Amino acid sequence: MSHLLRDDKGAVAHLTLNAPERLNPLSDAMIAALVEEFDRIANDRSVRVVVLKGAGRAFCAGHDLKEMTAARETQDKGRAAFKDLFDRCAEMMQKVIHLPQPVIAEVHGLAAAAGCQLVASCDMAVAAEGTKFGVNGVNIGLFCSTPMVALSRNIPRKHAFEMLTTGAFVEAARAQELGLINRVAPANALSETTDELAQTVAAKLGSAVRTGKEAFYRQIELPLAEAYEYTGAVMVENMLDRDTEEGIKAFLEKRTPAWSQE
Amino acid sequence: MSHLLRDDKGAVAHLTLNAPERLNPLSDAMIAALVEEFDRIANDRSVRVVVLKGAGRAFCAGHDLKEMTAARETQDKGRAAFKDLFDRCAEMMQKVIHLPQPVIAEVHGLAAAAGCQLVASCDMAVAAEGTKFGVNGVNIGLFCSTPMVALSRNIPRKHAFEMLTTGAFVEAARAQELGLINRVAPANALSETTDELAQTVAAKLGSAVRTGKEAFYRQIELPLAEAYEYTGAVMVENMLDRDTEEGIKAFLEKRTPAWSQE
Amino acid sequence: MSHLLRDDKGAVAHLTLNAPERLNPLSDAMIAALVEEFDRIANDRSVRVVVLKGAGRAFCAGHDLKEMTAARETQDKGRAAFKDLFDRCAEMMQKVIHLPQPVIAEVHGLAAAAGCQLVASCDMAVAAEGTKFGVNGVNIGLFCSTPMVALSRNIPRKHAFEMLTTGAFVEAARAQELGLINRVAPANALSETTDELAQTVAAKLGSAVRTGKEAFYRQIELPLAEAYEYTGAVMVENMLDRDTEEGIKAFLEKRTPAWSQE
Repeated sequence: MSHLLRDDKGAVAHLTLNAPERLNPLSDAMIAALVEEFDRIANDRSVRVVVLKGAGRAFCAGHDLKEMTAARETQDKGRAAFKDLFDRCAEMMQKVIHLPQPVIAEVHGLAAAAGCQLVASCDMAVAAEGTKFGVNGVNIGLFCSTPMVALSRNIPRKHAFEMLTTGAFVEAARAQELGLINRVAPANALSETTDELAQTVAAKLGSAVRTGKEAFYRQIELPLAEAYEYTGAVMVENMLDRDTEEGIKAFLEKRTPAWSQE
Repeated sequence: MSHLLRDDKGAVAHLTLNAPERLNPLSDAMIAALVEEFDRIANDRSVRVVVLKGAGRAFCAGHDLKEMTAARETQDKGRAAFKDLFDRCAEMMQKVIHLPQPVIAEVHGLAAAAGCQLVASCDMAVAAEGTKFGVNGVNIGLFCSTPMVALSRNIPRKHAFEMLTTGAFVEAARAQELGLINRVAPANALSETTDELAQTVAAKLGSAVRTGKEAFYRQIELPLAEAYEYTGAVMVENMLDRDTEEGIKAFLEKRTPAWSQE
Repeated sequence: MSHLLRDDKGAVAHLTLNAPERLNPLSDAMIAALVEEFDRIANDRSVRVVVLKGAGRAFCAGHDLKEMTAARETQDKGRAAFKDLFDRCAEMMQKVIHLPQPVIAEVHGLAAAAGCQLVASCDMAVAAEGTKFGVNGVNIGLFCSTPMVALSRNIPRKHAFEMLTTGAFVEAARAQELGLINRVAPANALSETTDELAQTVAAKLGSAVRTGKEAFYRQIELPLAEAYEYTGAVMVENMLDRDTEEGIKAFLEKRTPAWSQE
């Protein structure tokens, strides 16, 4: 069975982590499947939004500890394998950021350690009531140092520190207050809530959303003056897009835009 | 009629965006008027605080789309005009940051696109209940790439991304939770609430507030060690200010300081 | 009497600012005592967590204004003394960040100016209901420029600006909403609440927590790609720690880990 299922609804690609009996760990195979699919989608203009979810009882429980333990059986005690794993995992997380299309995590059950990092790395996230979020590696002596890169860029510093050093889980409602997720939905309305958000974004002009997403993450790391210089140039190109010209005209003429793009 | 009205109450300058029939768009003329007034105020020590508001039904609806559309009638299809517009608009937004005096946005009705950016760029903001805030350019195919520079430095990342890609509006109460504004007031108490905040700040030692505002935005972009090195030097100069010496003495002697400054 | 009391409970070192009659100001002697104790603890593997609190009615009222005023009686009007004071105070605040062990502020009564900065500089903070937090230097003409370095890295920008320019105090419940503190407890349960948090962290693998704390503050100042490169290397070393190997094995075997470390 494939580690990652894909099911498109219109312009929204639904990816499902599919190792439910083990809570969808980010094994070597799972990371590879995600990277491959993200690369495919990056070049597919028919996809406007990606939804990422987990099969079975949980979204994702984090790294595959069994596989990692097995890797210790080498002369270097796993050093090369671990380096390779964390490199590829970080590459995958950054592919979410660099994917032209917005990615929405649809989270239920549990998002732990690297699973919580995956939620934090997505552009937006919706979770079912009661979903538990944690960066709990500290509980087994493996501090969530890579997950904290994503977490600490999403929630206030002191709360991130507490989650990382206590290993405690927070529920969906608290995760929303902290800024880790956008919306909480009753379990039986989770898909519907995510789909509504996804369809809203998918209905926008694709080129504008792609341009905007790329600019979002670039400008956020720049000093203010440079951020304005850069985004000003982005705005000029956006204005010269024919579909944007049509969008503005349609707005002034109080009619629906006739956009050419897929 | 002037695009920008000014009305001073004591040490507080009230600036009113004044094109109410069109929801006070940031037209070429409006941007120029703001830049001119900010430059004037920057050198006027009698002004301690600036309040910025909009005439009519709304604070500001964003850029002037009619004017921008008209600019397409050139050989370069408006490229030079758009570059100039976004350069001057970014310059104006940064003048708010670099103005020695704190600027408080007094917001009602609507703050959309570059109008929302203007709120985010102010040092503080007060809004009437029910005021709508949005970075809705995506709805017409023009992603709010410059507004997001200010927005993403004010509110949590995932919520900024949602506002930018859905084009949805949030109401004042939610804007306050997110950190976009400081206070929400009933519509009939909006001016009073803003004035109280403005008078509170205007009553402080002007030189200390000016020094502090400049240091706030400089240090926030520095690494921690550099931020401390820089602000430590600022503190030394602040301590050597005669009025500060008097302020500290007065505090120790439990009396009101006799400050020399205007 | 000593300026700083130390009382260890198991692996948790409790430090008490001890100049209660003057609300525990950060005098030259108090700063020196803190630096000395932090240096001692940094090299003491038996300490896993530090709790920092104040004796008497308040946590800390900020700098020692009497001592600073006395320093004006030199030919340079105190310039050299002030420079030295702010340098040493910033060094102390950064020692909290660089201390290998997590530091929890246990706050009651008042945390004002540099006292509020000390709370913001701690990794986590718990406060009694009704505790007041403020960066109120502006009220005496001395803008809290060094405190804002810590404050503005903990709470949203507009709220930090308001606290700094109004000098107003916020109560514990609001401080928690803003992200300045982690938890609020009834006054009679403050120590218990802090102790529970401290013991939770102290029960984790010490080497993992130390590694994680150092990585937390380093990665947060790096661009995303560099943060991942750096923390990936941290994860590899963490995986190769024998105690971490045991922690993961124990988890897979559903038993308590037998960690060798103190």
